[in-house]
Amino acid sequence: MRDHGGGLAEAADRFGTPAGGWIDLSTGINPWPYAVPALAADAWVRLPGRDSMDTLLRAATRAYGAPDSAVVLAAPGSQALIQRLPFHRDRCRVAVLGPTYAEHARCWRLAGHEVEVVPTLPEGGFDVVVATNPNNPDGRRLPAGDLVAFAAIMARRGGLLVVDEAFAEVTPEVSVAGAAGMDGLCVLRSFGKFYGLAGLRLGFALGATGLLRRLEADLGPWAVSGPAIEIGRLALGDEAWARTTRERLSEASAQLDALLAAHGLSVLGGTDLYRLVETDRAGALFEALGRRGILARAFDAHPRWLRFGLPPDAAASARLADALKA
Amino acid sequence: MRDHGGGLAEAADRFGTPAGGWIDLSTGINPWPYAVPALAADAWVRLPGRDSMDTLLRAATRAYGAPDSAVVLAAPGSQALIQRLPFHRDRCRVAVLGPTYAEHARCWRLAGHEVEVVPTLPEGGFDVVVATNPNNPDGRRLPAGDLVAFAAIMARRGGLLVVDEAFAEVTPEVSVAGAAGMDGLCVLRSFGKFYGLAGLRLGFALGATGLLRRLEADLGPWAVSGPAIEIGRLALGDEAWARTTRERLSEASAQLDALLAAHGLSVLGGTDLYRLVETDRAGALFEALGRRGILARAFDAHPRWLRFGLPPDAAASARLADALKA
Repeated sequence: MRDHGGGLAEAADRFGTPAGGWIDLSTGINPWPYAVPALAADAWVRLPGRDSMDTLLRAATRAYGAPDSAVVLAAPGSQALIQRLPFHRDRCRVAVLGPTYAEHARCWRLAGHEVEVVPTLPEGGFDVVVATNPNNPDGRRLPAGDLVAFAAIMARRGGLLVVDEAFAEVTPEVSVAGAAGMDGLCVLRSFGKFYGLAGLRLGFALGATGLLRRLEADLGPWAVSGPAIEIGRLALGDEAWARTTRERLSEASAQLDALLAAHGLSVLGGTDLYRLVETDRAGALFEALGRRGILARAFDAHPRWLRFGLPPDAAASARLADALKA
Repeated sequence: MRDHGGGLAEAADRFGTPAGGWIDLSTGINPWPYAVPALAADAWVRLPGRDSMDTLLRAATRAYGAPDSAVVLAAPGSQALIQRLPFHRDRCRVAVLGPTYAEHARCWRLAGHEVEVVPTLPEGGFDVVVATNPNNPDGRRLPAGDLVAFAAIMARRGGLLVVDEAFAEVTPEVSVAGAAGMDGLCVLRSFGKFYGLAGLRLGFALGATGLLRRLEADLGPWAVSGPAIEIGRLALGDEAWARTTRERLSEASAQLDALLAAHGLSVLGGTDLYRLVETDRAGALFEALGRRGILARAFDAHPRWLRFGLPPDAAASARLADALKA
């Protein structure tokens, strides 16, 4: 199972399907999605045109606070960008700040690079550095100023800093999207997590012309679906929804912490979209929850960790509390 | 403008937007799309799971008549497959049967291969041969038996025959999908054209294990959106709709031929989704139609050709007839 969680079919194979249905807490996807509007027929029917894509990219530029000098491109999910980015550097030494989302190291290795997982921004010795900010799963935040200064150093050496901001909507203060366009910096954003629409497949890269134009050519025309373009444009332009959602996620995250604490589980970190628990009984707990139809996220390399997404409603919270009691 | 047509924004820039709106005849997309059903929230909200993808692939296997020994995989449009396929062969000599859809030669060249456009299936001298069947834009059909025999010859040499069946729904008798799974054959199918849902981004590759598994890993998880999986599964399973649609397209194609003939234009070929006209006044006609808000498909390399998609209704046919009169 990949780091994203969401392997409900596999969980059902293993534990069976509970009477009350599964509660999937294995992802960091907002359980209160942006309401999908009725779509114009053109979104389904026509090949996405340059004009509608431009409207989406303008909405993304504004929502992420990128300057006009940045090139912004859309992809069918930020995973597609994580996969393709490594093919746009000659073989080199890559540092991935971790532990983090495993796809970064995997994809750079797959493209033939030498990858090392490092605990902090390295002094030197690497051509590419990848930082997920805020980090998944532990929520570690690097100050935006540090990252921008680091990107400038990388740029002077002809290097690249990749910042994966998949969960940055809930910590906008750490985003470096406002510095996108400078040499040496590439920012990745995910649409599906904060907007709760992971099935839509939409993500963005923001950066300087050379790399971004190569990535764009690589992804090809019509990589993003018409519905993703339309819904993305509307949602990214809806500032009121984003504000309300940030508050709602913040409250829900505090409530989840309280629930976990009440059952003796201490939260190591996380963001308002997921919480990471460290406990000696993580393995047993994962099993016990699974038998009760609650899917958490376990980590092979970190057997004492367990990550929880937000329960979608009071009933799910009650079932989680019951299961933790047992 | 790429071979796909559909550059309405560019056309509007050039000709302005007519009072009655544009009639886009520049694509080969069915103007009577499969009705998009109300989708379960999961399709939008969740990361597409293995189970829903498997259901889609089973529907595609059945609809295309592929044997169980074939590996079938889904991509966000057959364009994505056309782009990625060339990266799964070492640099080699590639023959593209043409003139045809220009992306084949372009993408193999981009991946570093030596590409030649040839008029017929070559006797030898090539490691990869690409045939679009029925062909776009002229509709030339190669008998399925010839292609299967040719794939067997390619397989014995360690070569590959790629058959792009983007429009094969309207000529099912030429499809080689029933032979998919044999070494040396890779079949590409497009969902959006026959089902009239090009915005959805859905296409398929059918072939033997080795190549298909590499392509699948290359595309990565969650390459196809939840709505595409759901709608594709329903539409591919709807045999009655496919039958009715084949008849409707066949009638509409005959009516378009009659309309073109009545205005002195002779049809060189095509399929029931598009008709190719050859005339000395193709350039002037493209301009005259454009000024009247009708977008046909012109070909830089073939200045005497003009391709027409099906007019969506009687009003569009009448406007086309009027414009051809002028």
